[in-house]
Amino acid sequence: MRAAIIRTAHFNAAHQLYVKEWSQEKNFELFGKCANPNFHGHNYEIEVRLSGEVDPVTGMIINLKELKDIIKEEIEDRFDHKNLNLDCPEFKDLMTSVENIVYVIWKILREKLDDKFDLRVRLYETPRNFAEYPAD
Amino acid sequence: MRAAIIRTAHFNAAHQLYVKEWSQEKNFELFGKCANPNFHGHNYEIEVRLSGEVDPVTGMIINLKELKDIIKEEIEDRFDHKNLNLDCPEFKDLMTSVENIVYVIWKILREKLDDKFDLRVRLYETPRNFAEYPAD
Amino acid sequence: MRAAIIRTAHFNAAHQLYVKEWSQEKNFELFGKCANPNFHGHNYEIEVRLSGEVDPVTGMIINLKELKDIIKEEIEDRFDHKNLNLDCPEFKDLMTSVENIVYVIWKILREKLDDKFDLRVRLYETPRNFAEYPAD
Amino acid sequence: MRAAIIRTAHFNAAHQLYVKEWSQEKNFELFGKCANPNFHGHNYEIEVRLSGEVDPVTGMIINLKELKDIIKEEIEDRFDHKNLNLDCPEFKDLMTSVENIVYVIWKILREKLDDKFDLRVRLYETPRNFAEYPAD
Amino acid sequence: MRAAIIRTAHFNAAHQLYVKEWSQEKNFELFGKCANPNFHGHNYEIEVRLSGEVDPVTGMIINLKELKDIIKEEIEDRFDHKNLNLDCPEFKDLMTSVENIVYVIWKILREKLDDKFDLRVRLYETPRNFAEYPAD
Amino acid sequence: MRAAIIRTAHFNAAHQLYVKEWSQEKNFELFGKCANPNFHGHNYEIEVRLSGEVDPVTGMIINLKELKDIIKEEIEDRFDHKNLNLDCPEFKDLMTSVENIVYVIWKILREKLDDKFDLRVRLYETPRNFAEYPAD
Repeated sequence: MRAAIIRTAHFNAAHQLYVKEWSQEKNFELFGKCANPNFHGHNYEIEVRLSGEVDPVTGMIINLKELKDIIKEEIEDRFDHKNLNLDCPEFKDLMTSVENIVYVIWKILREKLDDKFDLRVRLYETPRNFAEYPAD
Repeated sequence: MRAAIIRTAHFNAAHQLYVKEWSQEKNFELFGKCANPNFHGHNYEIEVRLSGEVDPVTGMIINLKELKDIIKEEIEDRFDHKNLNLDCPEFKDLMTSVENIVYVIWKILREKLDDKFDLRVRLYETPRNFAEYPAD
Repeated sequence: MRAAIIRTAHFNAAHQLYVKEWSQEKNFELFGKCANPNFHGHNYEIEVRLSGEVDPVTGMIINLKELKDIIKEEIEDRFDHKNLNLDCPEFKDLMTSVENIVYVIWKILREKLDDKFDLRVRLYETPRNFAEYPAD
Repeated sequence: MRAAIIRTAHFNAAHQLYVKEWSQEKNFELFGKCANPNFHGHNYEIEVRLSGEVDPVTGMIINLKELKDIIKEEIEDRFDHKNLNLDCPEFKDLMTSVENIVYVIWKILREKLDDKFDLRVRLYETPRNFAEYPAD
Repeated sequence: MRAAIIRTAHFNAAHQLYVKEWSQEKNFELFGKCANPNFHGHNYEIEVRLSGEVDPVTGMIINLKELKDIIKEEIEDRFDHKNLNLDCPEFKDLMTSVENIVYVIWKILREKLDDKFDLRVRLYETPRNFAEYPAD
Repeated sequence: MRAAIIRTAHFNAAHQLYVKEWSQEKNFELFGKCANPNFHGHNYEIEVRLSGEVDPVTGMIINLKELKDIIKEEIEDRFDHKNLNLDCPEFKDLMTSVENIVYVIWKILREKLDDKFDLRVRLYETPRNFAEYPAD
């Protein structure tokens, strides 16, 4: 029996959308207020979705406490109360768009989770903008 | 790299469920209170989901400002503070069920968006009833 | 020991903001899209708040089932799937603004509830606009 | 035209995670506080998602009132204000994990709904933990 | 300058509404399904509201980390994943109604917090039922 | 007849909690991760609550469009996508704690609104931390 289990988490971070090779004018033209050189920020909300076989004895796909700990150590501790552009090497050469952040989170978790699980991540930048990886 | 980006929007509208060819009794029998000839209404909430390639420079599937503007001009301005049955030609010969409304929204947006994007729309009629098109 | 108990409910209704004595121009000038003569609508959410003495045996201010039934019979059955302007005599000569609707709900419930309770009502027209009566 | 319609519902129940064949130590080691022998509980929220053909006359995949009644009779009346471990024969030999509960709900609804509908169920144990069946 | 700061928390617990001195019939008559002798349960959500002077240097009424720790140690650790009726001496002779639980939480926090703060607590039993103490 | 009307708004901003006169150690000791010198950020949500007389003709305390425009021009345009510490002179010598930000918002709005209205503001820094001014 295959099912999916979803666990949520959150982190609060500063960021900006800015292509260094472009002029400030071009950055503002494309990214609007998101290009503010002094940064802005968000309460990011994450949904981590694992699908896999349900263990017939425990009734679980994965021990939720284990999943919660992995998310805390690998994602929340890494990104919470950080400036994604300045503090996080993951985004040294990568725009901190919600699409890229959700992909980075997926990649980090993918390496920590057994291959037997299918993994999907959703990331809310605001309650009105969010992204998913993979796209399905 | 393919991911999905979702943007929400909303509009407030009046409507009724009513098949003109049927008697009022039959309408009330099937649709209950939703057949009220004087209309009722909802705060409709929309989720527009685009999947596609993430641009390696901008980190974006589509410029969110562009997507937001399309949704505002094509959906919010068209349906907000309207009577879907009386004011909107899209529903002249089409029941204003949540299934049909979500399909109409999908069709309008599909024509305005590049074919390279996959498009899915979710529409909340209330926080307790909602529909998606396509069904996946 | 005095505490407060709050119960929520909801109804979906059509309405318009329109002063009959004014021209259509003046109505649109003041009320904007809310003056649409064909109506628009909302998912109204209600919070009914009673404060009073907690019964030392039952631990209750009022039996929640009783409160739920009063709200259903007096408010939900009266306003759900209605056109507030056309179907509801309460608003025959009263604008269906969120301020007036919350007051009408308060007045109806006030007559059905024992005087020993203090009563406050909050009404959400949308998640972004709401009103309270009395003002405290 | 195929679309999907989703209806939500809820029930409040007590449960515990406990494998009878294991020692209390092993249960606490694996399930943590969820193994409390005196039970704990949740406000479970359900999303029932049906996909199918939209009827060209009524605009509906299924009459929402009929779907609402099936969910009430088959799920809410069965599980609301119950102890899932003690009161519900469905879980006599099955862990009351969120994965198993969502599967049991799916199976009950699957038998009551026409085969022409695809059925998916999501179950929130808390706003932070939820499961889906099937996994897609 | 006086302001108010609010911090939320949550715990998941089982309980029942049952007056031991009454017959089972009378309990079911008054409390309905809430009297189930095998218990049911809820995801309780708490809002702790402190009002007081804002410190001119730190800009804070109270250090939020300190408040968060007090709520965790005194409320979450005490009530989370517990059976309020069986596991918690606070309710040995007190109905576990939402009114009484909010009062018990207020009393515990009141003793741990400096008298210079005004304290109000709101407790959600479900998103549809909640209580406040004091009543204001 | 006095009632209250509430309008919500939001802005996304970066900030830090940092007393310049203190060592970095002391700042981290008191403010924890909030003292990150590179900033973090939030989706701030605002509730602006006006109480006053309901106009007998329009049914309104204030024209909601007017209130919405004042909040947009005075608060959203000023703080959205900004670094509160670096971009906003209001916080040049004032900690950007949620208590101080809600007070600053109140003061700005108080000057723009007629004295006949009572004004209260609630500000969510996250869904789990929020503040109100005045304290009531």
